[in-house]
Amino acid sequence: MRKAVVVYSGGMDSSTLLAYVASQVFEVYAISFNYGQRHKKELQYAKKFAKLFTNLVEHKIIDISVINELIQGSSLTTPGIDVPDGHYAFETMKSTVVPNRNAIMLSLACGYAVSLGANCLFVGVHSGDHFIYPDCRPEFIETIDKAFRLGNQGFANEDLRIVAPFMYSTKADIVKLGKQLSIDYSKTWSCYKGGNIHCGRCGTCFERREACILAGVSDPTKYKDNRSLDVIQKEMEKK
Amino acid sequence: MRKAVVVYSGGMDSSTLLAYVASQVFEVYAISFNYGQRHKKELQYAKKFAKLFTNLVEHKIIDISVINELIQGSSLTTPGIDVPDGHYAFETMKSTVVPNRNAIMLSLACGYAVSLGANCLFVGVHSGDHFIYPDCRPEFIETIDKAFRLGNQGFANEDLRIVAPFMYSTKADIVKLGKQLSIDYSKTWSCYKGGNIHCGRCGTCFERREACILAGVSDPTKYKDNRSLDVIQKEMEKK
Repeated sequence: MRKAVVVYSGGMDSSTLLAYVASQVFEVYAISFNYGQRHKKELQYAKKFAKLFTNLVEHKIIDISVINELIQGSSLTTPGIDVPDGHYAFETMKSTVVPNRNAIMLSLACGYAVSLGANCLFVGVHSGDHFIYPDCRPEFIETIDKAFRLGNQGFANEDLRIVAPFMYSTKADIVKLGKQLSIDYSKTWSCYKGGNIHCGRCGTCFERREACILAGVSDPTKYKDNRSLDVIQKEMEKK
Repeated sequence: MRKAVVVYSGGMDSSTLLAYVASQVFEVYAISFNYGQRHKKELQYAKKFAKLFTNLVEHKIIDISVINELIQGSSLTTPGIDVPDGHYAFETMKSTVVPNRNAIMLSLACGYAVSLGANCLFVGVHSGDHFIYPDCRPEFIETIDKAFRLGNQGFANEDLRIVAPFMYSTKADIVKLGKQLSIDYSKTWSCYKGGNIHCGRCGTCFERREACILAGVSDPTKYKDNRSLDVIQKEMEKK
């Protein structure tokens, strides 16, 4: 059977991706990363959610938190820097960038894929990520895919490619697909702040809430701040 | 002052690279990786040799041996698989490939370079590596460099590039340069087998010995098997 490696965080997008890949005729290998993110909670969610799929052969959680000796200053990984509230498209969201994160994760996942003789390496980047995160944009993914093919010539399965099926989808598109795949999104974790429940205010909570609204899917998530997005946004604009 | 990150293993090539970069007007940051290689000894050599350079600001040794949970089957990292003897250009040398190793190391080094605001990311690949290792070839390095530029747009120093000054040099060229830079090669480590002294027979010992001969530089290394390369090669061909 053909093999697929899925880069998988336990969030909405990559959980939908996992379900999407598992709904096809693949042996599925999921890989998650502990990179010192303060929302490590996503990994606990990832572990549980992955168990739902019978054609998932293996789910590896790889500790690369050593990268924090190299990369400093991201609010996602640096204790003293606050995760900003507000919409993903805000300039302030730039503090959540971890430089070269996707190159690092994809390089490791690709090594795994080559070693397995896999045919596809799936990643859940989508169009909503493009504005803030340059390493989610199509030109980056296409170019690093080309680099990996060149760098593994003669060693990788010949048809090995990075596949990003949501590249031109919105998060609302993803949620709508997830609904059709019967995903229970209460079993996924987004919030960057990593508290007991989703904060409802940070970039990824905003995105999660907005996606459900736009997709017309009821949101099963409990939010600490559960006032409407409009109210929260207006409050933030006043500050 | 401009900043340079150097990917640095403690071997001949990258030690020469470090000396070459340190001889220029750069603040130098060196990065070495423990990836579970059986010749970890190179890292001890790396540590000592790096101390020779006054404009070296920092030398980080990063433990990524976790990649061995992902990537299996290389003779460099798998205890049950023997490191082959003989010339680098032999087909048997393919067992020393660690899939996607350079992509993984360069991704981490690039994250470091972006975080530092560095201008150059130096890597010591050379033409002798091209035959066996696809991730040392110019088209790979050029393409992953392009991917990194795309993936860090707006976050990296604008002029950040991967620089591979030895890309079209032979190892003999490197040794000749090293001599001019007054490098004492007894302070570098090559042997893949990682014993007490260099074995004199494995791919990288062969290469090291041959490079000194071709460069007309006397080789200060003690080899366990110190018969001539011709004699060793003939013996191997008989087997």
